[in-house]
Amino acid sequence: MFTRAVYPGSFDPVTNGHIDLIERSARLFDEVVVAVLRNTEKTPLFTDQERAEMLERAVRDLKNVTVASFAGLLVDFITEIEASVIIRGIRAISDYEYELQMALMNRRLSSSVETVFMLPAEAYSYLSSKLVKEIAALGGSITGLVPEDVEKRLGGKFRIN
Amino acid sequence: MFTRAVYPGSFDPVTNGHIDLIERSARLFDEVVVAVLRNTEKTPLFTDQERAEMLERAVRDLKNVTVASFAGLLVDFITEIEASVIIRGIRAISDYEYELQMALMNRRLSSSVETVFMLPAEAYSYLSSKLVKEIAALGGSITGLVPEDVEKRLGGKFRIN
Amino acid sequence: MFTRAVYPGSFDPVTNGHIDLIERSARLFDEVVVAVLRNTEKTPLFTDQERAEMLERAVRDLKNVTVASFAGLLVDFITEIEASVIIRGIRAISDYEYELQMALMNRRLSSSVETVFMLPAEAYSYLSSKLVKEIAALGGSITGLVPEDVEKRLGGKFRIN
Amino acid sequence: MFTRAVYPGSFDPVTNGHIDLIERSARLFDEVVVAVLRNTEKTPLFTDQERAEMLERAVRDLKNVTVASFAGLLVDFITEIEASVIIRGIRAISDYEYELQMALMNRRLSSSVETVFMLPAEAYSYLSSKLVKEIAALGGSITGLVPEDVEKRLGGKFRIN
Amino acid sequence: MFTRAVYPGSFDPVTNGHIDLIERSARLFDEVVVAVLRNTEKTPLFTDQERAEMLERAVRDLKNVTVASFAGLLVDFITEIEASVIIRGIRAISDYEYELQMALMNRRLSSSVETVFMLPAEAYSYLSSKLVKEIAALGGSITGLVPEDVEKRLGGKFRIN
Amino acid sequence: MFTRAVYPGSFDPVTNGHIDLIERSARLFDEVVVAVLRNTEKTPLFTDQERAEMLERAVRDLKNVTVASFAGLLVDFITEIEASVIIRGIRAISDYEYELQMALMNRRLSSSVETVFMLPAEAYSYLSSKLVKEIAALGGSITGLVPEDVEKRLGGKFRIN
Repeated sequence: MFTRAVYPGSFDPVTNGHIDLIERSARLFDEVVVAVLRNTEKTPLFTDQERAEMLERAVRDLKNVTVASFAGLLVDFITEIEASVIIRGIRAISDYEYELQMALMNRRLSSSVETVFMLPAEAYSYLSSKLVKEIAALGGSITGLVPEDVEKRLGGKFRIN
Repeated sequence: MFTRAVYPGSFDPVTNGHIDLIERSARLFDEVVVAVLRNTEKTPLFTDQERAEMLERAVRDLKNVTVASFAGLLVDFITEIEASVIIRGIRAISDYEYELQMALMNRRLSSSVETVFMLPAEAYSYLSSKLVKEIAALGGSITGLVPEDVEKRLGGKFRIN
Repeated sequence: MFTRAVYPGSFDPVTNGHIDLIERSARLFDEVVVAVLRNTEKTPLFTDQERAEMLERAVRDLKNVTVASFAGLLVDFITEIEASVIIRGIRAISDYEYELQMALMNRRLSSSVETVFMLPAEAYSYLSSKLVKEIAALGGSITGLVPEDVEKRLGGKFRIN
Repeated sequence: MFTRAVYPGSFDPVTNGHIDLIERSARLFDEVVVAVLRNTEKTPLFTDQERAEMLERAVRDLKNVTVASFAGLLVDFITEIEASVIIRGIRAISDYEYELQMALMNRRLSSSVETVFMLPAEAYSYLSSKLVKEIAALGGSITGLVPEDVEKRLGGKFRIN
Repeated sequence: MFTRAVYPGSFDPVTNGHIDLIERSARLFDEVVVAVLRNTEKTPLFTDQERAEMLERAVRDLKNVTVASFAGLLVDFITEIEASVIIRGIRAISDYEYELQMALMNRRLSSSVETVFMLPAEAYSYLSSKLVKEIAALGGSITGLVPEDVEKRLGGKFRIN
Repeated sequence: MFTRAVYPGSFDPVTNGHIDLIERSARLFDEVVVAVLRNTEKTPLFTDQERAEMLERAVRDLKNVTVASFAGLLVDFITEIEASVIIRGIRAISDYEYELQMALMNRRLSSSVETVFMLPAEAYSYLSSKLVKEIAALGGSITGLVPEDVEKRLGGKFRIN
């Protein structure tokens, strides 16, 4: 059995919580494709390209992990690359309902796709891309919350020194 | 990569919701071991033996699924059989907190063990062994909620027709 | 259209929160049957008879409310008395999941039965029969939480005064 | 007793989950008024008129259901049409808190108005107007999630074929 | 021991629920600083100045309560004024997760800062600045939900009379 | 202002999560009384005396912390020792509802008593006395979850080594 899993997200930017989850899933599945959503509605802080670059740098030592980007329906992308698992991190109650709704809808759109939920390390339980951007924008320290490379880029965006 | 997953539970008795989850996980992992907890504190309706028998009958057509039983710490059993994944079904908010607590504690007891949460089909979202036993005890119909074999055995326990 | 609703519970004993909900539902439905569960497993503080008496006294001024008792499956009782609605109070997250599970299972057992959830007054949001009994047992005041009659009976049980 | 119930919402557009709930409530109450909110702040995909038309077509076989539209406070509309019940669907934890807040506030604004919560069929538990629009916008199939008529109109909006 | 606590918020405008919490915390801590967030992203209904004025009027009889405003990171403000406690009201499940996330992040940003959660009176459990503004905008009565002074100012904004 | 806080619980046995919360509250309040509930209904693993001894050893370096035991209503004990604050740890959704119910009831029983909720360190978010006892009973390691002294006593109870 060869199981390809997809870990979708905006990754605007990738955090250490995301990386923790990528590492954990890479130990369980034969291949993990980190899939950057090229969302056109919301205005991301980083471009698709930048978000993919930061991810690629962060996962370069993980042999069975690759980075891709997609637009449109997630299940269409999954069918295209012949994956069978969607990986989602769960941390908390407010995510939970939305995550279940998406998992059930994705199962309806493609019955062969399964969503599995995994827990990031407790140290990252309060971490989100949104929160990291807010703290960086207000000049707070984000060391230890994101990879060094991402920290520098955020500093560039918000003129931190 | 060969990934062995464990799906632990009391299975007193196995329901169609459990079977749905076993089928789903058998499509994702190389081997799935359904592990019956020989709990000594609570008094189960069916013996360890009976619970394992009902499971074995229910999964006999799934090539990569086996049934085992264990006592003691789940992580010790997992280490012993060289598995790396614990599978848990999630349905609802009240489970959720307890499930997270167990997953974090199991990770602490054995850092190489990962818990993944999966969703049963919606039709089984309200199903539990406890509820099935209550309905059977009051003479209600449980057809479609458990395998036929289990239905008969429950009928025997509660003297239904 | 004539709609008969059932408000089931243990009512061990009835609280002002229950009465608030009975009054609210009596304004919406043609007839409300308060149905005392004669549960044989748990040992209630008050007998079926006592629980029904306290309820009857509490609702005697509500013309379209009656008190009954039942054993066995709730949906069988509902079918027997030709009711179509189950009324349940909701207050909080921990109830909520259980309530949904029961509502879905009852719908499965009898497709013509609908469960509606209603909110008690905020002043009763923390009130439960269990909590009232605990406070009374420890000698605390329960005035305003239960009808006067119930307060006296609880006093008798716990030798208050 | 004659009980008029109001089922308020944006219905942008109506889904099969809404219709399921309308059918269920029409079996419990003498009259059900489906009330389309003419919200001026958010920009809906369909106009008030279109949303009401789709609803009217969907409920035309239900004798005791009518469609209306309203602006301003819901409780003012309810007082005006002499209704006494607000019907709300509940599916999940994230809705739940908001729903309770609104129900308590509406009770404060008009003490004679009661909110009752009802469960849609499980098959619709993950369904929302927002999700339907997102899937349609990305070219996914929404067959079985909305009435045929609505499916065509969404196709027109998003140029699906 | 002298404990200075901070109660941060947008207070756009202050409600009776906020005031209830300020009064409760003023009985526990030596000094309570109500800290108005000068948020630049969202457009508030009232200016910083107005929001602070309404608060000052509302707390003028509480000897150990002062009003201040801040921009930037909350923990920086707290360090600057040598406070050690953040006070947050909790009412409900949807707040709860966000509140925990913020509390853990603030603890990470400044290990000497502790967040304590307190409950407003039940009568205010459904109250929020956002809801008050919505009701006022639609011409509903907000008497008893906000101080008189705030009621007048909201009337001015929305031309109520 | 002198604020005496009470941290009530069964402490059967005290865990490092409890100690973390005691240390945090000792930094906020003038005096913290850790109050061991002498519950007569449930059978604790350790006697009142043992539970108090383990606590006393654990807090002996905290100058403003004392250990006491109580039976009966918590609010009566609080009134007796002239405290004004109840401290409770919150970790998760399933606790949360129960905690709110108790806090509101305690406020009703004594209007001068305020409950504040505090967060233990994330590392202890999955820790409970019950879980510690279960792991110890099954022969798992509890090092780092409880004080050394407690670990030895648990070993004695369960014949570990």
